[in-house]
Amino acid sequence: MILDIISKKANKYELTKEELETIFMGYLNNKVKDYQMSAFLMAICINDMSDSEIFALTDIFINSGDILDLSFIDGIKVDKHSTGGVGDKTTLIVAPIVASCGVPVIKMSGRGLGYTGGTIDKLESIPGLKVDLTLEEIEKQAKEIGIVITSQTKDLAPLDKKIYALRDVTATTNSIPLIASSIMSKKIAGNADKIVIDIKVGNGALLKNMEDAKRLESLLIKIGTYYQKEVRTVISNMDRPLGHNIGNKLEVLEALDVLKGNVKGELLDLSLELASKMVSMGKEISEADAMKEVKENLENGKALDKFLEFVKYQYGDIDSLNIDAKVYNIKANKTGVLKDINALSIAKLSESLGAGRKSKEDKIDYNAGIIIKKDIGDEIKEGDILATIYTNVDNKKFNLERIFEIS
Amino acid sequence: MILDIISKKANKYELTKEELETIFMGYLNNKVKDYQMSAFLMAICINDMSDSEIFALTDIFINSGDILDLSFIDGIKVDKHSTGGVGDKTTLIVAPIVASCGVPVIKMSGRGLGYTGGTIDKLESIPGLKVDLTLEEIEKQAKEIGIVITSQTKDLAPLDKKIYALRDVTATTNSIPLIASSIMSKKIAGNADKIVIDIKVGNGALLKNMEDAKRLESLLIKIGTYYQKEVRTVISNMDRPLGHNIGNKLEVLEALDVLKGNVKGELLDLSLELASKMVSMGKEISEADAMKEVKENLENGKALDKFLEFVKYQYGDIDSLNIDAKVYNIKANKTGVLKDINALSIAKLSESLGAGRKSKEDKIDYNAGIIIKKDIGDEIKEGDILATIYTNVDNKKFNLERIFEIS
Repeated sequence: MILDIISKKANKYELTKEELETIFMGYLNNKVKDYQMSAFLMAICINDMSDSEIFALTDIFINSGDILDLSFIDGIKVDKHSTGGVGDKTTLIVAPIVASCGVPVIKMSGRGLGYTGGTIDKLESIPGLKVDLTLEEIEKQAKEIGIVITSQTKDLAPLDKKIYALRDVTATTNSIPLIASSIMSKKIAGNADKIVIDIKVGNGALLKNMEDAKRLESLLIKIGTYYQKEVRTVISNMDRPLGHNIGNKLEVLEALDVLKGNVKGELLDLSLELASKMVSMGKEISEADAMKEVKENLENGKALDKFLEFVKYQYGDIDSLNIDAKVYNIKANKTGVLKDINALSIAKLSESLGAGRKSKEDKIDYNAGIIIKKDIGDEIKEGDILATIYTNVDNKKFNLERIFEIS
Repeated sequence: MILDIISKKANKYELTKEELETIFMGYLNNKVKDYQMSAFLMAICINDMSDSEIFALTDIFINSGDILDLSFIDGIKVDKHSTGGVGDKTTLIVAPIVASCGVPVIKMSGRGLGYTGGTIDKLESIPGLKVDLTLEEIEKQAKEIGIVITSQTKDLAPLDKKIYALRDVTATTNSIPLIASSIMSKKIAGNADKIVIDIKVGNGALLKNMEDAKRLESLLIKIGTYYQKEVRTVISNMDRPLGHNIGNKLEVLEALDVLKGNVKGELLDLSLELASKMVSMGKEISEADAMKEVKENLENGKALDKFLEFVKYQYGDIDSLNIDAKVYNIKANKTGVLKDINALSIAKLSESLGAGRKSKEDKIDYNAGIIIKKDIGDEIKEGDILATIYTNVDNKKFNLERIFEIS
């Protein structure tokens, strides 16, 4: 039976919801083996899925676990997701901005698996900050300050989690239908009404080209429509890192700098765009009007205050966040113009410094990371400092090749 | 590295021999996991392999184990292979015919995994017959009587064996390049000079259509040419069972009947064709001349004598081969002409009677099986006996549907 279902997909036939349930729920219940599921996932990667297969799979993912009850929030529940990139600390910036505009933000985030940490890792790098809140704590905090960022409390879409772990070790991560079902099932189980999704595209992202990004965008919106959830998207570049800081503590510091109004450029622009989309959806106003509010609250310090209030409420001590690491400089080996900063190479360097984890058991060094000191287009002289490295890894030659392109 | 190789195949790029070695030998050495190999095999199933990938894989399979030393045989070493079908007992018929013509036959065979037993199972159903011969015993027997059929002595192509077991449980059995590499690696490791291959095509075979059979034929010949081994092929029908008897002891009895000259039809014709190809290759004479010798030795009883000599030499007692089972008749439920006997349905019935094994640990009941009493085209009256069932399985309703088609 299981083999018939795998064969059907391998031979490009459309599967019924019952067939998808048999194999996927069989996998959750350990009746279908890892080696059978990975063969099936590869068949999906190569032969794709139809829209109705994608809807069915999303449903199966959602129903594999709990649905979060957020009924204590009166209004519209807006959530945000990023497909993940190097130096992406936008949640730390966007969440307090949106909350300061009066749209409640209750965000469940994950720890990172890959070159850099996830939002929860970044928050945990703030001394004392508590990320594992109970449902009661979440409700109380949401009512009192309108912003909560916590690790996953309930068992949301556990099947997606199990499938994701297998995809990660079987070269089946880059299937657009699987990515779309995975994202949407978690957001819907998390009970969001409206969702803003930042789709990263480039060498440092899961999606390498615009065609894939467009396909994902279209699928996310379709799934949203199917569940009557409004989905808005941003497609953003990930050929180069987002912002200047990479690494957990360093990214918190950069987010703080953005909220203080000290940062211009891509990171600020993207944060404003994501925040105004969320405010627009949460308040049912135009994005232009939302953008005005967002900029205002950034300028008048309300967004920063909300961030500091949030950190303190979750027992974090932002003032004692210090980088405890050895510092090295990366210097330019020639004179010219900085043409490119390669996101993937930066990510790999970041991991080698100790800022990421390869398996769930790995420990992250929150102090490790990179600060990029130059921007694309800058005139560079030989010997100029291009970046500063923070690490506690000893006796290691770091691979600095292909990070900076000067011509 | 492993994930890069899997991705490359998933994205339809050609792999180098080094890449194939990395992943396949990694699997043999347990560095590559089952779930990674099954994803890779699925990518091969869907995206196919180039000729040079197929040659490389065959090489890797061969070099994963021992090469059989058959240098004690002076002349040309001819081997035979069948891709497997229902009621296929041709080895039991062909081997003694060929040996009786003076062409030595040293055949390593396997136990069956599937609906019916393999050649070794069939031989083991003869009381006393020994199938696990040492290399010394093989050499002595080959020199004295010119015919040996034994289970695999040396560790030939162990990687192929490991891969085959995984393919069997991951719906990746029907890849023509994988089938071709698997067959040829075992034959080449078995040190054959020339190989006759019976490619079965039909509902009861691995290959369901003529296009696949033709592709396999072409690949087998190409791989043969690459290794300077002459390959000749027969493509034979497996929509209906071969011969009338299915089940281990029953098939031995039918083989004996063919050797006694009591059987006409497809089973006899195919056996003669395979035998004359082998004799033609072994003696370097035309197939027409070989056919004359083959028919002569069947008629004059030399082939039968060789079979009996072989059974006795390997300690078998053919006279005490009795069917110890309950007997049931399958009767026609209407009057008409017998249009079809479905091989796959017969195979499934045979397994349910106890004649096959699903996993290596299952025990076969050598007594179990089916004798088909009517031929396609026969006029049938309602109540006529279509087949007789032999089984020791109790209290079971056997599925007799879709076996016989009368119209």
